[in-house]
Amino acid sequence: MQLLSTVNAVRQYVAAARRQQQSIGLVPTMGYLHEGHLSLARKAREQNDIVIMSIFVNPTQFGPGEDLERYPRALERDRELAAATGVDAIFAPAVPEMYPDGYATYVRVEGITEYLCGASRPGHFEGVATVVSKLFNIVQPDRAYFGLKDYQQAQVIKRMVIDLNIPVEIVTVPTVREADGLALSSRNKYLTPVQRQSATALYQALKKGAVLIRSGERRAEIVREAMVAEILSRPETRVDYVAVSDAQTLKPITTINKGKVLLALAVWVGNTRLIDNLTVEVADNVAHHDEEQATPG
Amino acid sequence: MQLLSTVNAVRQYVAAARRQQQSIGLVPTMGYLHEGHLSLARKAREQNDIVIMSIFVNPTQFGPGEDLERYPRALERDRELAAATGVDAIFAPAVPEMYPDGYATYVRVEGITEYLCGASRPGHFEGVATVVSKLFNIVQPDRAYFGLKDYQQAQVIKRMVIDLNIPVEIVTVPTVREADGLALSSRNKYLTPVQRQSATALYQALKKGAVLIRSGERRAEIVREAMVAEILSRPETRVDYVAVSDAQTLKPITTINKGKVLLALAVWVGNTRLIDNLTVEVADNVAHHDEEQATPG
Repeated sequence: MQLLSTVNAVRQYVAAARRQQQSIGLVPTMGYLHEGHLSLARKAREQNDIVIMSIFVNPTQFGPGEDLERYPRALERDRELAAATGVDAIFAPAVPEMYPDGYATYVRVEGITEYLCGASRPGHFEGVATVVSKLFNIVQPDRAYFGLKDYQQAQVIKRMVIDLNIPVEIVTVPTVREADGLALSSRNKYLTPVQRQSATALYQALKKGAVLIRSGERRAEIVREAMVAEILSRPETRVDYVAVSDAQTLKPITTINKGKVLLALAVWVGNTRLIDNLTVEVADNVAHHDEEQATPG
Repeated sequence: MQLLSTVNAVRQYVAAARRQQQSIGLVPTMGYLHEGHLSLARKAREQNDIVIMSIFVNPTQFGPGEDLERYPRALERDRELAAATGVDAIFAPAVPEMYPDGYATYVRVEGITEYLCGASRPGHFEGVATVVSKLFNIVQPDRAYFGLKDYQQAQVIKRMVIDLNIPVEIVTVPTVREADGLALSSRNKYLTPVQRQSATALYQALKKGAVLIRSGERRAEIVREAMVAEILSRPETRVDYVAVSDAQTLKPITTINKGKVLLALAVWVGNTRLIDNLTVEVADNVAHHDEEQATPG
């Protein structure tokens, strides 16, 4: 497996692959890999001749006071995990390689970024859209892979790709969960044992919301309140947002109608902010979970 | 010559050229072609196997109350001129092809857009950067051609290309002028005979500024005032801005030092806003015009 740290090295690597008519899959990550990332890499491995994983803790998507400095990093371990998963090359640039002096260009997606994490973390999705559009231009992949744990992020990237006519196929991959339902996240590492126990409330709350909808509840506020209550029943939890939203526009809804509903939440567990979501397909009088369940390998 | 009106048609056309290893030059225009545009096309013709010209009056780069509706259009004439200049394909999309319902993504270049036309026309360069990044993704050209009459636009595009790692070479081409110095512009068509005469003041003012610098004047305000006086000596003129700026950052300067100085102006002649510029290379005690002069063929 190749370890590439400059844009030029990636361009050369990609050009060689292209000369051999090889297709390229890109898996953008911030590193500290877990099974969620590896499930993206495995999907990319199935669908492409060459798999490139980027590992870059992108400063422009962190706000002031967020966890940019303490975000966990473990490049050596990541290399081993990526290699064992069949990744062909890692692109791990230093910050000045991506944002040199004089850097001044940003990509903004309006509309769907007004809600959920976009409301809680101003500028976050501009940082995401900017770095991802850079990675797309550097790698020029045929396909790029994003996890559904970051549902809003995947929607932002899809919108950007359509709007800017970026020639890449976006592939989304189901959230990978621990046995007790906690969605895998590099930030789970921050949790104390008590907090780790409390963190199961996120998925429990989502399940509870889904059950209510499936049993016929159509008032979003009732569903939301039940989810909030589930979260707050655990020690050291604080709600950032709990939302019942249209799964396309991400706009909060008041009445649950036929179509795809997104249950999404962000919860502080101690000093750690965790997110999770579930989509529910609502038929006329029936609802079922949309999520394909993935479990750690 | 091909006339293409959809993104998919361009993608197919480009894919066929790529299969034959042909290089592609893109000439982005808003149509109503004049010798300035054709000089871009000729340069592209020299340097590439395939020349694609886009013709699109881009609504996102016009502000409220600007001349979007009355901007001159003449696609039939443009087709003939482009074909006669060796253009292989025109991409002339309708507005909904470029900005369909739900469109939400914008590219912003900070810093150099704060000055000159960026200050006079809020949102203008965001519209330019957005549409050009779309065109780059649609055509994926090896090279793209921009005229130096729109000096700030060329700088914005160069900044965006570097920052977003867009794999395209930006080629700038000197301003083409009428015999009396007026820079060619599709908007010159708006001028009455009296205004057309007044419009020669733009280039006269730039020349006057350059002469002052060449004769040793180092106070930017003195240079600026002489340029403003030249403009206002003519009927029906009104200054939007007259600037003596650093040619890289576009920031106004107070003292002219060694290096490249940009003289730039925007002038209302009647209801028509015209722009022009000149760069002057200042050596220790000598200055000379940087502009290669181009005249209509």
